[in-house]
Amino acid sequence: MLKTPSSKYKPFAPVRLGDRTWPDAVLTKAPIWCSVDLRDGNQALIEPMDIPRKLRMFETLVKIGFKEIEVGFPSASQVEFDFLRQLIDGKLIPDDVTIQVLTQAREPLIRRTFESLKGAKKAIVHLYNATAPVMRRVVLGMDEDEIVQLATDNARLFQQLAAEQPGTQWTFQYSPEMWSGTELAFSKRVVDAVTEVWQPTPERKCIINLPSTVEHSTPNIFADMMEWMHRHLARRDAIVISVHPHNDRGTGTAAGELALMAGADRIEGCLFGNGERTGNVDLVNIALNLYTQGVSPGLDFSEIDEIRRTVEHCNQLPVHPRHPYAGDLVYTSFSGSHQDAIKKAFAARKDGDVWDMPYLPIDPKDLGRSYEAVIRVNSQSGKGGIAYLLESEFGLELPRRLQIEFSQVVQGVMDATGKELTGKDIFALFEKEYGVQTIAAPQRLVIEETGKTGGESFHIKAEVQLADRRHPIEGTGTGPIDAFVAGLAEATGHTLRVLDYHEHAIGAGAGAQAVAYLELRINDQTLFGVGMDGNIVSASLKAIVSGLQRSRVGQPAGEATITH
Amino acid sequence: MLKTPSSKYKPFAPVRLGDRTWPDAVLTKAPIWCSVDLRDGNQALIEPMDIPRKLRMFETLVKIGFKEIEVGFPSASQVEFDFLRQLIDGKLIPDDVTIQVLTQAREPLIRRTFESLKGAKKAIVHLYNATAPVMRRVVLGMDEDEIVQLATDNARLFQQLAAEQPGTQWTFQYSPEMWSGTELAFSKRVVDAVTEVWQPTPERKCIINLPSTVEHSTPNIFADMMEWMHRHLARRDAIVISVHPHNDRGTGTAAGELALMAGADRIEGCLFGNGERTGNVDLVNIALNLYTQGVSPGLDFSEIDEIRRTVEHCNQLPVHPRHPYAGDLVYTSFSGSHQDAIKKAFAARKDGDVWDMPYLPIDPKDLGRSYEAVIRVNSQSGKGGIAYLLESEFGLELPRRLQIEFSQVVQGVMDATGKELTGKDIFALFEKEYGVQTIAAPQRLVIEETGKTGGESFHIKAEVQLADRRHPIEGTGTGPIDAFVAGLAEATGHTLRVLDYHEHAIGAGAGAQAVAYLELRINDQTLFGVGMDGNIVSASLKAIVSGLQRSRVGQPAGEATITH
Repeated sequence: MLKTPSSKYKPFAPVRLGDRTWPDAVLTKAPIWCSVDLRDGNQALIEPMDIPRKLRMFETLVKIGFKEIEVGFPSASQVEFDFLRQLIDGKLIPDDVTIQVLTQAREPLIRRTFESLKGAKKAIVHLYNATAPVMRRVVLGMDEDEIVQLATDNARLFQQLAAEQPGTQWTFQYSPEMWSGTELAFSKRVVDAVTEVWQPTPERKCIINLPSTVEHSTPNIFADMMEWMHRHLARRDAIVISVHPHNDRGTGTAAGELALMAGADRIEGCLFGNGERTGNVDLVNIALNLYTQGVSPGLDFSEIDEIRRTVEHCNQLPVHPRHPYAGDLVYTSFSGSHQDAIKKAFAARKDGDVWDMPYLPIDPKDLGRSYEAVIRVNSQSGKGGIAYLLESEFGLELPRRLQIEFSQVVQGVMDATGKELTGKDIFALFEKEYGVQTIAAPQRLVIEETGKTGGESFHIKAEVQLADRRHPIEGTGTGPIDAFVAGLAEATGHTLRVLDYHEHAIGAGAGAQAVAYLELRINDQTLFGVGMDGNIVSASLKAIVSGLQRSRVGQPAGEATITH
Repeated sequence: MLKTPSSKYKPFAPVRLGDRTWPDAVLTKAPIWCSVDLRDGNQALIEPMDIPRKLRMFETLVKIGFKEIEVGFPSASQVEFDFLRQLIDGKLIPDDVTIQVLTQAREPLIRRTFESLKGAKKAIVHLYNATAPVMRRVVLGMDEDEIVQLATDNARLFQQLAAEQPGTQWTFQYSPEMWSGTELAFSKRVVDAVTEVWQPTPERKCIINLPSTVEHSTPNIFADMMEWMHRHLARRDAIVISVHPHNDRGTGTAAGELALMAGADRIEGCLFGNGERTGNVDLVNIALNLYTQGVSPGLDFSEIDEIRRTVEHCNQLPVHPRHPYAGDLVYTSFSGSHQDAIKKAFAARKDGDVWDMPYLPIDPKDLGRSYEAVIRVNSQSGKGGIAYLLESEFGLELPRRLQIEFSQVVQGVMDATGKELTGKDIFALFEKEYGVQTIAAPQRLVIEETGKTGGESFHIKAEVQLADRRHPIEGTGTGPIDAFVAGLAEATGHTLRVLDYHEHAIGAGAGAQAVAYLELRINDQTLFGVGMDGNIVSASLKAIVSGLQRSRVGQPAGEATITH
């Protein structure tokens, strides 16, 4: 049982900003966007991106319309450094895009960072050091004065190194690390000390980035903190206030939105909320929330599925089916009454009408998804469930295309009977459809490897039961299956080819079975056959017979059930 | 390019509640929790739960500590009805748990609903009808007066039917459907009309549930709406105000928290945020957010991984790796500086200290996860990435246990060289480790099916290359693999057994290859062998030889690299 946490956890202190204005603020324009997919996102991956993936992510971010992109932590590893050099030397950075790089407040790292940026037209260099009490006390062992000294010393080093590379248009950025866990007064003190060094002007601003490195509090407290900073920071007109929310409490998107209402000008985050632990704030979510409020985000997500596929490829992490705006299920209404309402509202809608659809907060077409696609997902909706049931209850791991083929069979039965099917029902249907119990293994089988090199070195002989007749077959090929297919083709007069196959064991020990799934081309028809047997060769051979029997040619005229 | 949406989407109207109090409110106690996993969650599943899954979900919810559980929509389908009967007739509902059922405001459905509840000790019956303008206009074709009439007529029917079943302790609940999209004044009008009929008292309250059926606005506006209702509803002291947030804008958790701060007493949601489209609010998230603020939620998530597995089984949907509190990656810090800070803070922490750890908002041990487990995930972190690379770049679909085995090989190389490995490097390592290119297919192979029924009907002869020697082998078994293993065991004097195997095709046409992954038991050692060949039989046989060569017995003394 969860213990009462009253002695272990302490509540976050409210700010009690009596005259706060953010709850009445309405966002009417997009913030300055900064993607940190290639830095904060990348460092949180199980397998960080290699350079081809990084390039692909960078191109995608540019295409979406990001003008500020944090591309890495070049002093942290050679790959990060090399990627930056490739961007600069390869002239891959469009003129209207500014790259940003992160560095800790340590001299060798800062020197290496400026070195990595040689030849860049413009760059944001992003300095951070720990300011939160737990970090001061436990990690750095420094008091407040020493922290301020650390920040200002390194801020001065920034100025000096930038001056040595005058060909680059520099912007400086500073983050008090774990700002969300730092006393507001101390955050102000250290930030003011840094801007005192940098002396930004309204014409040449610096960026002050305020991260919820770990999300500590409800988003209203976060917004109060932001409004406090917005009002109290020195040189406010010479500063771009940036917010960098994380999502540990599941309220990162809200924290980002409320922070923008509270005075932040800019937001850092990742596509689909990648990033350390629970992720950075999801910029797609923030942008499309603006969009549905009539505010153009200035970012292009009109092909959201393509963007999602790219991001999944680069991050090697899935986007959840219920992820706002991008998940597979988010435009799908399963309930009949919802579907009914949507249909009626579509029928009533006229071109140019304001979007006001029940259960559809955004027009899927705006994101490159059609409403038809939504419905289609829904009408094929059994597929995932069918595959899951067959695997979890019966150990069958259907290949993807077979899942699709078989789901149509199930759908047909469901439509006809209108009844729910249990896992057992589905398994029975599967066995029946593919003849799993009825197809006999070839008899009098002899497979011989003839030693002929480089060619059709396998010879096979067998007797095969097809419908009610036994066919003696004989064939040669590059392997037993190949030889069997050749023999069967000759015996039946049809063209037969194996397109793909999967095979695996079910169960263990003496009762273990092999199940083979073969995708076949029979004359002009593509379909699956399935075979199950105590041994893998017989299972494969049965699968071929299964496919042949299921195909048009394997059935008496008029009985064919499969059409493609 | 995303079009400027100014003419298509309209912003949500702010409430401008000048004297709002919620931004200063601090949650100091848990709300009344109501799980709707079995209703709202279930209806949004690709494959809705069958009865065994429903029972398992119900038991899990009870075990967690939910005292109010919406168990279905019994008038909607027979399964829903039957499940309810099973709960009641099977006496599966603990005395301190109240079941809740939903019904639309239609007489036959309401009658059927009360029928389904016969014999229940206590029950919450939940009535809803559409109140939002788009629903009134497009779906129902009713004006405001007619909607009020509909609600009150059916509220009266509730009273009448409840009176006919006096053995049950009834609680009534009413939801204005799409409250978040309904004018506040009209919501008040219809709710007041319903409570005028029900005449709840402080001793016998009714529940007024306010759903963001679709999340329309930022959570501060939602909180303003809630505070408005809290202040303006008639008979407030006789009403439990319930909030039912959805997550279309990704701010469902924030909306729920701020709504509780704004006056709601109760919250409806699902475990891990299952539910229509982007899901209902995640009650685990809300509860653990309270917990880390020193407030006991009264729900037990001390075995969160077990709960997660059960929910994934029931819903057949995954919990995302970055899901707050429950995802695989949420306690893992990949960055060296984060890990360093955590280690130092752990070293400094004394028993009984308030929890104040950098990068760890909650103690994983409180949820039945150990910090060691976190680290372990991290040190095995290549596994997912390795499997992904081999599949996406080379078409290899490694079975799960082989992924684990091979990741240790990769980790060893990474630790030794300190370098990042590309997909190509990993593939080369895979080929080398399993001898994919070097192991020869058995020669002079003859496989014969002898026709002996019910037993070892396969006979095999072949010549096998092991290290630098050719062994003639001969064996019998239930299939070719079995016979081969028997022959090989006899020739080498070792115990050999196949535990599991997977096999699939890579590529297509003449160049297609088969790859076989066999999990073997060789004497007392368990390990994988991998074989690749143009035909499936040779691939499998090669995989056995691969395993044998990789095992201790296949290697000259002192060179064994695999230990288990």
